Amino acid sequence: MAFVAFIGLGQMGAPMAANLIKKGHQLSVYDVNRQAVEVLTGLGAKGADSPSAAASGAEFVITMLPNGDLVEQVLFGESGVTESLSKQALVIDMSTIHPLQSDRLCQKMSQQGFSYMDAPVGRTSDHAIAGTLLILAGGTEAQVEKAKPVLMCMGSELINAGGPGMGIRVKLINNYMSIALNALSAEAAVLCEALGLSFDVALQVMSGTPAGKGHFTTSWPNKVLKGDLSPAFMIDLAHKDLGIALDVANQFHVPMPLGAASREVYNQARAAGRGREDWTAILEQVRICAGLTPKIKQ
Amino acid sequence: MAFVAFIGLGQMGAPMAANLIKKGHQLSVYDVNRQAVEVLTGLGAKGADSPSAAASGAEFVITMLPNGDLVEQVLFGESGVTESLSKQALVIDMSTIHPLQSDRLCQKMSQQGFSYMDAPVGRTSDHAIAGTLLILAGGTEAQVEKAKPVLMCMGSELINAGGPGMGIRVKLINNYMSIALNALSAEAAVLCEALGLSFDVALQVMSGTPAGKGHFTTSWPNKVLKGDLSPAFMIDLAHKDLGIALDVANQFHVPMPLGAASREVYNQARAAGRGREDWTAILEQVRICAGLTPKIKQ
Amino acid sequence: MAFVAFIGLGQMGAPMAANLIKKGHQLSVYDVNRQAVEVLTGLGAKGADSPSAAASGAEFVITMLPNGDLVEQVLFGESGVTESLSKQALVIDMSTIHPLQSDRLCQKMSQQGFSYMDAPVGRTSDHAIAGTLLILAGGTEAQVEKAKPVLMCMGSELINAGGPGMGIRVKLINNYMSIALNALSAEAAVLCEALGLSFDVALQVMSGTPAGKGHFTTSWPNKVLKGDLSPAFMIDLAHKDLGIALDVANQFHVPMPLGAASREVYNQARAAGRGREDWTAILEQVRICAGLTPKIKQ
Amino acid sequence: MAFVAFIGLGQMGAPMAANLIKKGHQLSVYDVNRQAVEVLTGLGAKGADSPSAAASGAEFVITMLPNGDLVEQVLFGESGVTESLSKQALVIDMSTIHPLQSDRLCQKMSQQGFSYMDAPVGRTSDHAIAGTLLILAGGTEAQVEKAKPVLMCMGSELINAGGPGMGIRVKLINNYMSIALNALSAEAAVLCEALGLSFDVALQVMSGTPAGKGHFTTSWPNKVLKGDLSPAFMIDLAHKDLGIALDVANQFHVPMPLGAASREVYNQARAAGRGREDWTAILEQVRICAGLTPKIKQ
Repeated sequence: MAFVAFIGLGQMGAPMAANLIKKGHQLSVYDVNRQAVEVLTGLGAKGADSPSAAASGAEFVITMLPNGDLVEQVLFGESGVTESLSKQALVIDMSTIHPLQSDRLCQKMSQQGFSYMDAPVGRTSDHAIAGTLLILAGGTEAQVEKAKPVLMCMGSELINAGGPGMGIRVKLINNYMSIALNALSAEAAVLCEALGLSFDVALQVMSGTPAGKGHFTTSWPNKVLKGDLSPAFMIDLAHKDLGIALDVANQFHVPMPLGAASREVYNQARAAGRGREDWTAILEQVRICAGLTPKIKQ
Repeated sequence: MAFVAFIGLGQMGAPMAANLIKKGHQLSVYDVNRQAVEVLTGLGAKGADSPSAAASGAEFVITMLPNGDLVEQVLFGESGVTESLSKQALVIDMSTIHPLQSDRLCQKMSQQGFSYMDAPVGRTSDHAIAGTLLILAGGTEAQVEKAKPVLMCMGSELINAGGPGMGIRVKLINNYMSIALNALSAEAAVLCEALGLSFDVALQVMSGTPAGKGHFTTSWPNKVLKGDLSPAFMIDLAHKDLGIALDVANQFHVPMPLGAASREVYNQARAAGRGREDWTAILEQVRICAGLTPKIKQ
Repeated sequence: MAFVAFIGLGQMGAPMAANLIKKGHQLSVYDVNRQAVEVLTGLGAKGADSPSAAASGAEFVITMLPNGDLVEQVLFGESGVTESLSKQALVIDMSTIHPLQSDRLCQKMSQQGFSYMDAPVGRTSDHAIAGTLLILAGGTEAQVEKAKPVLMCMGSELINAGGPGMGIRVKLINNYMSIALNALSAEAAVLCEALGLSFDVALQVMSGTPAGKGHFTTSWPNKVLKGDLSPAFMIDLAHKDLGIALDVANQFHVPMPLGAASREVYNQARAAGRGREDWTAILEQVRICAGLTPKIKQ
Repeated sequence: MAFVAFIGLGQMGAPMAANLIKKGHQLSVYDVNRQAVEVLTGLGAKGADSPSAAASGAEFVITMLPNGDLVEQVLFGESGVTESLSKQALVIDMSTIHPLQSDRLCQKMSQQGFSYMDAPVGRTSDHAIAGTLLILAGGTEAQVEKAKPVLMCMGSELINAGGPGMGIRVKLINNYMSIALNALSAEAAVLCEALGLSFDVALQVMSGTPAGKGHFTTSWPNKVLKGDLSPAFMIDLAHKDLGIALDVANQFHVPMPLGAASREVYNQARAAGRGREDWTAILEQVRICAGLTPKIKQ
C-alpha cells in the first residue's frame, strides 16, 4: 500500500480519495474547503494545511482541480507541492485542463527533476463514488505502470493513451466530439418534430445507420481509413441531400447552424474536385484544409 | 402474385425490379435507357415504350428515379402514368426526393382519385441486389399493408414511418444526421492527428461515450427526453470544454466550422439562462429557437 | 414614344408603370389582380385580359413579378406573352429571380427568336414612385441601348452590368453582401452593448476604418487587388484579435455565429501558410477554396 | 513638457516614443531589445535597465507591448514599474490586449493607489511615424484630460471612449467588425468572380447601398435604432434572397460559411415571428438571443 497525497476534494475528488482509503492506501489530503477535508479525515485520511504539507513524504500526489491555473498554483505557488515533493514521488494530475497548459506543467516539473503525468477521468460522479471511473492515462510506460495500482482503486477501466499529455488530449477529443454532437443531434431531432415525424421512428431508422452508430466504425474503416475513395455514397449526392434538408429546415423555421456549416464543408470538397469521391473523403479533405500532408492519391 | 409496373431502372432500380421478378411477380418496365429495359426483359419483364404503357393494367406502379421533377413528369407528363392508371392501383414512389414535392405529388394524385405512397430505401446497391434493402414506408395503414408483400421482395426490413410523406421525411432526417456527422467526425479525427494522438486510442475512448455511441440512446433518454434537466454535465462546462477544444484547434491550424457553430449554440443557451442545466437541455433550447412550444419548465 | 406592355402591377410594378405613362409612353397592362389593372387604366393604360393580349403589338414587354416561376408562366404559359410577341419586341424582366432561371429563360426566348434581357432594380418602393430607381441592366450592348430611354423613365441611374444575365447577378451579389452584413453588424453592435460601450463612440471609430467603410475601397485596392500581400496587418494578428473578440463575446453571452465562422476562415488561411501575409490575402484564400486558379504567387 | 517613461519600443512604440521626443518631452525608455533602446537614446532619450528604472520619477508611463501578460509583468513583475512608480504618475497602456485583462490591471493598479488608463491606437505604423495615429482613450475624464497633451504628440485624433476600459473595448469592436467583414467581403467577391460578373460593376452598385456603405449609417438609423420595424425590406425576403445566393454559390462551388451562418440567423428571426418585420429587426433579434431586454415591442 502507498502513501498518497490527494489535493482537490470536490464532487469528483472526494469520492476518489475515499476509494483510495477503502482500498487500504494511506492518505494525506488538502482542499481550500476545510469541511471537505474533515469528511476525509473522518474516513481515516490525514488533513494537511497546504499542498506542501500534504505532499511531504508522499509516494504519489494526485491533483483533481477545476482548472489549470489552480493546478499550477498548487504545484508551484506558495506552500506548493514542489516545496516538499520527493524526487521519487509521482504527481498525477487527474483534472481536466487545457492540454498545452498540461504540457507546460509537465515540462516545468521535469526541468525541476520531478515526475508528472496526466490522467483525467471519464464518466460521472456516480462512477467516482462506485470506483468505476474510466482513467485516461498519459505518461511514460514506466509512469503508467507505476500509477496503475493506485489509479485502479478509483476506476474500473484504464486506457493508456500513449505517452505524456495524451490522457488530457484524448479527453479533449472525446469531449469535443460528444459536446458538438449533442448540438447536431438537437438539430436533427427538432427538424423531426417540425416535420411531424415520430422521433421513435427516426430513432429506429438511425439506430441502423451511421446517423446513430457514428462513422468511425461503420462508413470509414473500409473506405477512407483504407485509402479507398471509390464511392459507396458520393459527395455530390451527400451535398445535394444536405441542401434539401437545409431548404426544408428553413421552410419549417428550424435553425441548423451546424448543418449549414457542414454544407459548406461539402461545398469546398466539391470545389477541390472531390464530388465523385466517397463521402468519407471528407476526412481527407479536412486533413488537407488543416495543412496536413495528403494520405490518399486523388 | 401481382402485376407491377416498374419505372426507373438505374443502379438501384434494376436489381430491385429483378428481385420482384425472382419472387414471381409479373413485371412491366420502363426507362429512358433502352439497354436497361432490355436487361430486365431478358429476365422476363415486359418492356414498355412509355410510363403510360407500363402502367396500363398494373396493380402496383413503382417509381425509382433520380429526382422529384422526373417523378412528376413520369406521373403527369406526356404519356405519363396517370394517363392509363387504374383507380385501384397503388403508386409507390421509392425515389429520394424533396419531401414537400412528395407531398404535392401525393395531394395531386389524391385529387385525381389515385392512390400514392412514398417508400424510399436505405442501405446500398449491394443490398438492392441481395434484396435486403431497408424500406421506409410512408402511407396510410391500408396502403402500407397492401404494399408490404411487394416491398418485402426488395428488402429485408420495413419500417412503417407513420403516415403519408413520413417515409421520405425519415429518410431526410437520417441522411441529414449522417452527412453532417461525417463532417463533424472529420474535425475530431483531424484534431486528433494534429495533436499527435493515436486515432485508435481516441476510438477506444469514444466507443464507450456519447461521442461514439450518439446521444439518442445514452445521454438523452433519462434527461431531456424525460423532462429532467438537473445537471449530470452542465452546459457551462460543456461550453468551456468546447472553447478549449477550439482554442487548441486554432493553435494547431485545424479548421472546425461545425465546432465553432456549436459553441455559439451553447453560448446562446447560456444567454437564455441554461448554463447550469444538463447539457441535454440543448435539445429544448434548439426547440425554442425553432419557435416550438417549450416542453420543460425552466 | 413607345408602346410598352407592363405585366405585374404590385408594390413596385404599379408606380413603375405609372411613371412610364407620365413620360408619355403608351401602356398596355396586365395583372392577376383586376383592381391593380384598374388603377393603371385610370391613368390612361389599356387593360388586357392576359399576358398575350397585353403583349400583342408591343415594342417593349416589361415583367415585374415575385418569382421566376411566374415569369416563366407569363412568358410561356397559356395565353402567355410569346403567343403574340413580335420578333422585333424586347422583353425586359425587371423581377428579382434566380440567376440560373433567368439564364434559362433568356436562352429559351432566344431559341424561339425573341429578344430578352434582365434589368432588376435597386432601392425601394419610394424610389419606384419617385422614378428614381437604380436600374441594373443585363443584356447585349444593343439591347441596353434600345431599352435605356424606357428604363430611364422609371429610374434615375442605370448601370450596364456587362452582358446578358449580369443585371440579375449583380443584384444577387449586392443583396447577399448587404443581407449578411446586416447580421454581422448586429453581432458587433450587440457585443458593444453587452460591454457597456457607447454605440455612438463605436460608430465614430468605425466610420474611419474598414469596419464602417468596407474593405472594397480601403484595405483591398493597394494590397490583394494589386497582388501585394506584404503585411500592413497580418493574418496571424487578425486571427488572434478575432479569438479575443469571440472569447469576450462568449463570456458576455453574445452569440456570434458569423464571427465564429470567420475565425475558422482565418484558421484555414493560416493552415495554408498565410499567417504572415496581409489580412487582405483572405480574398486569395477564399478564391482558392472555391477552386479558382491562384492569382498571386505565395 | 513632461517626463515620460516609454516601455515597449517595437514597430509601433519606437516611432511613438520618437514623436514624444520631437515634441519636446523628456523620455526615459525601456525594451528587452537593447538595440531598440539605443535608437531612442540616439534621439535624446535616457535608456533604462528595467521598467522600474524607467518609471522612476516619471509623470507618465506609457506601455506599448504585444500582449497583456507582458503588460502585467512590466507593471507588477520583478523590477516592474510599480516598484518605483509615483502615486501622482499616470500609467497609460496603449497596447491592444484582452479587455478583461485590462480591467484586472486597472483594478489592481487602483487598489495599490496608482492611476492607470487604456489608450490603444488605430491606424498603421506609417501613421505612428507621421504622428497621425487615432487614439482611443479609456479613462476617467480627469485622466483623459491629463493625458491628452502627451497622447496628441503621437496622434492626430483622440476619441474619448467614455470611461475606464472603454478604449480597449472600442478597439476590440472595431477590429472584430473589420476582420470578420474582410472574410464576408471575400465571399461576395469570389461569388462575383465565379459568376463571371465584373468586380468593378459590383463595386459600382455596392458603393451606393448598405452592401458597400454599411448599415450603421444607412438602413438602421431610421428603422431599428428609432424603434420602427415596419418593413422597408422584409426579413422574409432577405431570407429568401440569402437562400438563392447560397444555392447559386453551392452550384458554383464557392464556399460561403459566413453567408450560411447568416441565413440561420434570419431563419431563427423568422421562427421568432419576425418574418414580416424590417430586416434591421435582426439587431433586436440578436440582442434578445444574447439575453438582453427587448427594446422594441413586437
